[in-house]
Amino acid sequence: MSSEDFEPVRGTRDFLPREKIARDGIEARLRKLFEKYGFNPLQTPALENYSVLSSKYAGGAEILKETYKMADQGGRELGLRYDLTVPLCRVIACNPSIALPFKRYAIAPVWRDGPVSPERLREFTQCDVDTVGTESVLADAEFLALASEFFDSLGLDYEVRLNNRVLLEALLEWCGVPGGKALEAMLSLDKLDKVGGKGVLKELDERGFGKEVAEKVLETVRELRGGKGLDKAGELGLQENGLKALGDVRKTVEFAQAMGAKNVVFDASLARGLSYYTGNVFEAVLLERGVSASVAGGGRYDNLIGAFLGGRQKIPAVGISFGLERVFKAASEKTGLARTTVVRAFVIGLNKEKGLAAVKALREAGVNADLDLKDRGVSKCLDYAGKQGIRFAVIAGEREEGVTVRDLVEGSEKKVSLKQLPQAVA
Amino acid sequence: MSSEDFEPVRGTRDFLPREKIARDGIEARLRKLFEKYGFNPLQTPALENYSVLSSKYAGGAEILKETYKMADQGGRELGLRYDLTVPLCRVIACNPSIALPFKRYAIAPVWRDGPVSPERLREFTQCDVDTVGTESVLADAEFLALASEFFDSLGLDYEVRLNNRVLLEALLEWCGVPGGKALEAMLSLDKLDKVGGKGVLKELDERGFGKEVAEKVLETVRELRGGKGLDKAGELGLQENGLKALGDVRKTVEFAQAMGAKNVVFDASLARGLSYYTGNVFEAVLLERGVSASVAGGGRYDNLIGAFLGGRQKIPAVGISFGLERVFKAASEKTGLARTTVVRAFVIGLNKEKGLAAVKALREAGVNADLDLKDRGVSKCLDYAGKQGIRFAVIAGEREEGVTVRDLVEGSEKKVSLKQLPQAVA
Repeated sequence: MSSEDFEPVRGTRDFLPREKIARDGIEARLRKLFEKYGFNPLQTPALENYSVLSSKYAGGAEILKETYKMADQGGRELGLRYDLTVPLCRVIACNPSIALPFKRYAIAPVWRDGPVSPERLREFTQCDVDTVGTESVLADAEFLALASEFFDSLGLDYEVRLNNRVLLEALLEWCGVPGGKALEAMLSLDKLDKVGGKGVLKELDERGFGKEVAEKVLETVRELRGGKGLDKAGELGLQENGLKALGDVRKTVEFAQAMGAKNVVFDASLARGLSYYTGNVFEAVLLERGVSASVAGGGRYDNLIGAFLGGRQKIPAVGISFGLERVFKAASEKTGLARTTVVRAFVIGLNKEKGLAAVKALREAGVNADLDLKDRGVSKCLDYAGKQGIRFAVIAGEREEGVTVRDLVEGSEKKVSLKQLPQAVA
Repeated sequence: MSSEDFEPVRGTRDFLPREKIARDGIEARLRKLFEKYGFNPLQTPALENYSVLSSKYAGGAEILKETYKMADQGGRELGLRYDLTVPLCRVIACNPSIALPFKRYAIAPVWRDGPVSPERLREFTQCDVDTVGTESVLADAEFLALASEFFDSLGLDYEVRLNNRVLLEALLEWCGVPGGKALEAMLSLDKLDKVGGKGVLKELDERGFGKEVAEKVLETVRELRGGKGLDKAGELGLQENGLKALGDVRKTVEFAQAMGAKNVVFDASLARGLSYYTGNVFEAVLLERGVSASVAGGGRYDNLIGAFLGGRQKIPAVGISFGLERVFKAASEKTGLARTTVVRAFVIGLNKEKGLAAVKALREAGVNADLDLKDRGVSKCLDYAGKQGIRFAVIAGEREEGVTVRDLVEGSEKKVSLKQLPQAVA
């Protein structure tokens, strides 16, 4: 085989230590955050029965085209999961004893056999957090608070945008969009960030809404932004369901702020592409270099799980999904989380016994420590440790008492006893 | 769809919070341990090109029969990885700039479409730790030390058995096994724990070694155990390569103990099934209820990676693989690691504003806190929190100052201010 034959599968990547350390760090931070907000971890298999992945209320026809499909030895049709929502629905379906509300998070790979770009891999990490079994917007508010806390903790500039599907429908109706056509108009609006105002106008026009309605839609949703936007929306004279939805949005913002959320902004132009949302929708965007990039999105989907289960019961739910690949990228660019190695100290045992004692002392103190495994000389060892990005070299020489600690970044050196060693590299 | 249609794929499992929390805890402990020993994390994709999985020096014909195979939209033949060793070889092959020794760990799912039992799933977590690029048995010794520390920290009774393939070959030869037949005899010996002495004798006899040789083999390898076994082996008058291997074993034990390893036992009967081992082999077994169950195994494989890369260079390596499913089981049985929820405190906000302030105060202090999301009464809330296994309920009432903290395990109750709250549930 030639060396090209050893490349990872098209659309997938290896993550060597430098990147993997950064990703693990962010993942650990996310887990801690989710658990602080009372979400428990759930793990489901990568493989799902194809019948589940392709069932009526699952991901839909477009996503099925991108689903990796195979058969097992027993002839069962299987597929790799393309999201973490379908597995959640399935778990709720086959575990009727789960007490509701059920709050769970999952950080796991999903697979889509679609077009490949540096931004879009075929195997990528999704991170979903959902609350199943309550209609209260308190649950919605938690997601705004946790998204806000997360991006704050990474030192990123962000905004958490909030809208409501029922409110948006009422606004569209107010603008002249016929009742049954609201979803169509929303799908066009959803592209505002991508294609801009002109693009949306063109698409609305092409969909047959007429130029006048299209312009009114665009003007209205753009105007209704922030706290003043909420007030203005209240003055339009919307129908009852629109006003109720407006009240939900107000309560959601209020609850989220009471929980500590910052940078939550009402944004009537926010639509979110998926058709299954039934109430609040939200999106977190990073505001770096003047570009707003969506890194998390979600909303309330009160009908999906019940429909998935056969329609016999209603199981309201709300959740958010973080696009971790973008978060990983933004966070490592911004905060320089990247370490090239987990190793803090590299022991060079010129006297093997003393070297082993040194590495043992470090590890017992909880210091990540490595040692020379090739009987190299001091200068080769220092070269290796430096290239690895290890901060300290510990030289356990033949003659002296104690060991020599060299700081490979500052270039300084000192002699310490074994007992002082862990402190010296702290 | 009926509820059976929502079961996980045959041979796979969902891990609901109780189990997932325990598994995450053990995984976190393992990561910390590996990093303390200077191993860096590496992540490779679940999907591999089938040509890699089926290449000459990969897993072999038996394992290929159990490999999930599929094609992508471009017609490429892909498979789900069946181990973490082949991906490691591939990474070394396509990243020639990686500095050696390269020490990496990986904890990740692998897939095998084989017979299913409660002990053997088709999707299961493997945990591999390897050092690539050195022949020094110092590297081998690190695995004995880290395995020992790991099982010690879980409070499990264990033994880390050590043998050496070259030594075993010399011993077999000394017993009368013809030179070219050593591997065959080892494959029979490897079954000692499973089929017992009689079973091994029968198999050796069937393989044509003769009854006398078979009995001598069994007697010899059983006798050579522990420190005295090493001494006895030294007195047999083995050939030079056997004596060198014996010296390697002695050095490995000595280095491992200097690093803090306990319960390392030389065991001449240890063979390990895989044909690619070239030197030391080791196995960690749990000694629970009189049964010894293998939970980790590994050894030195100095020829595999080079052969995999086309044979142009020799890349020595040594590693260990932990069978996490068994470790998860043993550890949760022994240490009762299982918590049913990550949540420490459940806030019942009779006064919503005060409830939100309480949950905010808890989370800001780093306490995992949940709150009532269904506007339930106090008794329903206490019932829910108790069933979830949450330790503390925090009642934020309408009238009183501060909040009431109820310990749901001890049944005690006290009033505290918001400021005192995090401490009260610590």
